[in-house]
This record gives sequence, C-alpha cells and structure tokens, in this order.
Amino acid sequence: MTYCVGLRVEEGIIMLSDTRTNAGLDNISTFSKMFVVDQPGDRGLVLLTAGNLAITQTVWNFLEAGIWHNGVQQRLHDVPDMFDAAQLVGAAVRLVSQKDGPSLAAQGLSFDCSMLLGGQIDGGVPRLFLIYSAGNFIEATEDTPFLQIGEHKYGKPILDRVLTRQTSLIEGVALTLISMDSTLRSNLSVGMPLDLAVIRAGQLGICTRRRITEDDAYYRTIRDGWSSALRDAYQALPRPDFVV
Amino acid sequence: MTYCVGLRVEEGIIMLSDTRTNAGLDNISTFSKMFVVDQPGDRGLVLLTAGNLAITQTVWNFLEAGIWHNGVQQRLHDVPDMFDAAQLVGAAVRLVSQKDGPSLAAQGLSFDCSMLLGGQIDGGVPRLFLIYSAGNFIEATEDTPFLQIGEHKYGKPILDRVLTRQTSLIEGVALTLISMDSTLRSNLSVGMPLDLAVIRAGQLGICTRRRITEDDAYYRTIRDGWSSALRDAYQALPRPDFVV
Repeated sequence: MTYCVGLRVEEGIIMLSDTRTNAGLDNISTFSKMFVVDQPGDRGLVLLTAGNLAITQTVWNFLEAGIWHNGVQQRLHDVPDMFDAAQLVGAAVRLVSQKDGPSLAAQGLSFDCSMLLGGQIDGGVPRLFLIYSAGNFIEATEDTPFLQIGEHKYGKPILDRVLTRQTSLIEGVALTLISMDSTLRSNLSVGMPLDLAVIRAGQLGICTRRRITEDDAYYRTIRDGWSSALRDAYQALPRPDFVV
Repeated sequence: MTYCVGLRVEEGIIMLSDTRTNAGLDNISTFSKMFVVDQPGDRGLVLLTAGNLAITQTVWNFLEAGIWHNGVQQRLHDVPDMFDAAQLVGAAVRLVSQKDGPSLAAQGLSFDCSMLLGGQIDGGVPRLFLIYSAGNFIEATEDTPFLQIGEHKYGKPILDRVLTRQTSLIEGVALTLISMDSTLRSNLSVGMPLDLAVIRAGQLGICTRRRITEDDAYYRTIRDGWSSALRDAYQALPRPDFVV
C-alpha cells in the first residue's frame, strides 16, 4: 500500500509520500515513490506514484527517456506546460499498460497504478493532477485543493475540515504531516521515511525537498503534539446529559 | 454502506449505528441496523448489522423465531450467556448462508454481512463480539476495547488515540459520536439518523436508547464543536522551519 497526498494552495504546491512497498505482509521494502524534475528558472515538477512498483518505475523510466506524444518525442523536462505534462504521464501509463497489461492479466493481476503530478512550468501557474491507471486525469480546484492516492481514508478528515486554498505553504506542510501520521498509525502497509517536496508559486523549481525519518525533530513534534492536541480537544467538548 | 461501532469499557457497553442503506447511489433508504433484546434484571443485548439488508434482516428474524443450536431451540432472549449468544448469531448467519448463499452466488453476489453483538446476561460480565459472514467471531479485549463494521476507516483514528478501557460511558458516547461524525462527513453512503444504545455494567438491561436526528442538540454541539476544536488544535501546533 501507499499514501501520497498533494495540496494546491495559493502559495504553491506541497507533495508528500511514504516509502513502503510490500509484496505480501512478509516482504516489505523501502522505495521512494517521489520522482522530481527540478530545473530552476524553468520548471519544478513532482510525480508521486501508487500501485504496482514494476508499473510505476517503468512509467518513470519512459518519462525520463522520452516517449512519442503529439507527433514528437517528449520528456517531462521539456513539455511546454502542465496540461501537456499530465497528458504525457497519461500517455506513459497507457504505453506500459499496452506493454505489460496482457501479461499481467494472464497472471490474474490487474493493471494497478495511480499518480499525482504537481508543478509549475515557466509561463503557467502551479497545477496539480491525479492520473488514473487508464491514463486519464483530474485536476485539483478551488473547491477541492487536495488530491490523494493509495490509502486515503484515514488522513482525509483533517484535510476536509481544515484545508482551504488560502492555507499557507508552511501550514500546508504541517497539515500533510498530520494527515500522513493518521495513516501511518492505522495502516501498517504505509511506512516511514517520508519524502516531502514544496513548490512556491513563481519560484520555478523545487524550493524545499526533505527526507523525513523517524528521528526528524519536527515530525516528532507533530506526531506527539497532534495526539495530545486531539485528546485535549476531545476533553474540551461537552458531555451528553442523556446517559442514565 | 454502513458504519457501526461498539465500545467495551469498564463501565459497560456503547453501541452506535447509522441508518442508511443503498442499492446503488440512486436508491437510498433508511433502515435501523440496531436490534435489541431488553429484559430488565435478566439481560440487555444489542445487535448491529452491516452488509446485505436481505441477509441481515433474515438473520434477525431467525434469532427472534429461534433456531436449533446445541441440540435445542434457542433465541437471544433465552441463551444462558454471552458466548452462547455470539455462537447463536454465528449459527443464524450460517443458516442464512446455507439457505440464500447458492442463489446469491448464481447471481454473482457474495454472501456479505457482519455484525456487532454487545450485551450482558445475568451471571456474566458485559461482552462485545464481531461476527463475520462465515459465522465465526472475535471479542473486544483490554488491548482493543472497540470493534467496528462497515466503513470503519474515517472514524478509527480518534478511537485509536483516545479510547481506553477506563473511558467512562459518558465520554465513550461523545467519542462514538465524533467517530461517526468523521465518517458521515466523508462517506455519503453513511447517513443520519443514528441509533444509540448504552448498557451499564451490572444494570442488566439497556440503560439508554436514543434515536439521534439532525436536529439533536447534543449531536449538533459535537459536530460543530469537533470541527472547530480540530482547527484550534491544529493552529496550536508548531510550524516547520525548513520550508524556504
């Protein structure tokens, strides 16, 4: 399993992923699910992946090598805008689906992958997309400024309640870590360390990248602080008077 | 879908269920998923059900009418103890599985149901069980004092963080309503009104039953208060200093 979350706020984009992969409960490994294109002054793009690791790594390899799209060979490093970038990721997913899908199906396995693509390319605004295993995609909007892939349920309530498009990047980082912490506590197949990337609108490039381990002082503050904050918040609520 | 939760704390047992059923997104109805045996001075039992409504209603009808179990005709109204009560529910599930399973399978439908059974019978302690569609079951323990069926993920983090065996009945009611509220906000197939039942240890019978509607003053306090408490708790956490 996996948990990845992306936020699109006014100040920019935040991308956070875990690193646990597993083939059965008894075969657990650590792989980064974050792939980055960082060309300062031109573009910063972050791709987060969930699903079959053989599929998602192959998709990234095709995106790095370049694929034929709209009649030309294209890479995330040189597509002209974010809509093209999302189309290119979708095209790479479809390419791997055509290549590996029949063999997977013959083994009774589904073609299982999903991806978040966030970034900004010179001349455009920051945009955040969720690409499905069919290669089609949706985009985060003013109404719904976050997108998730993988084990999304445990970490969704806090985002539903607190996040708005006006949330700052710094607040957004705290929020994604709380959302991730709720997921880590409840689903063993999501695991540390974490990969974080932040893109500040207009700064064309990745402004912050951080590998967050168990020892990370700020993450520990969030983890311990959120648990006690939740308990305090609950303690402060009134109690029912109808229980006899 | 459904969300039902049961708590087994030192002071007794709390059972809470939603009432939404659906056959597709365009066919939504309200059915109570709570079935009660209340014989003051002798026993109080509460059964919460999730899954195919045709299955769970039939299970309850068999439990009301009595089924052959351990060589005698038994009902939840007269089983000698809670372990027998859980076995009887499991036997009723297996009976319906034998009766309806093949026809469901012929239509490509699985035999889908799960149940929570909480209660106390004279001579024993309060106990809480989760009965699976195979008729087998597990029991809540000191380590894990709550059990859930249906859409359990959204409402689990708060229980994981706050609930202990020492939580009072009154606090437990507040907790289950917070857990339910998180689920209601995130999953449209879980819906109001709610059914609540509380069993106080030693009081042999149901001490509190309540149908909680959208207009319920206490539920509105929890719903609005929890949202703002979460926002306040989040506001009080420190912000990262590594975002540049």
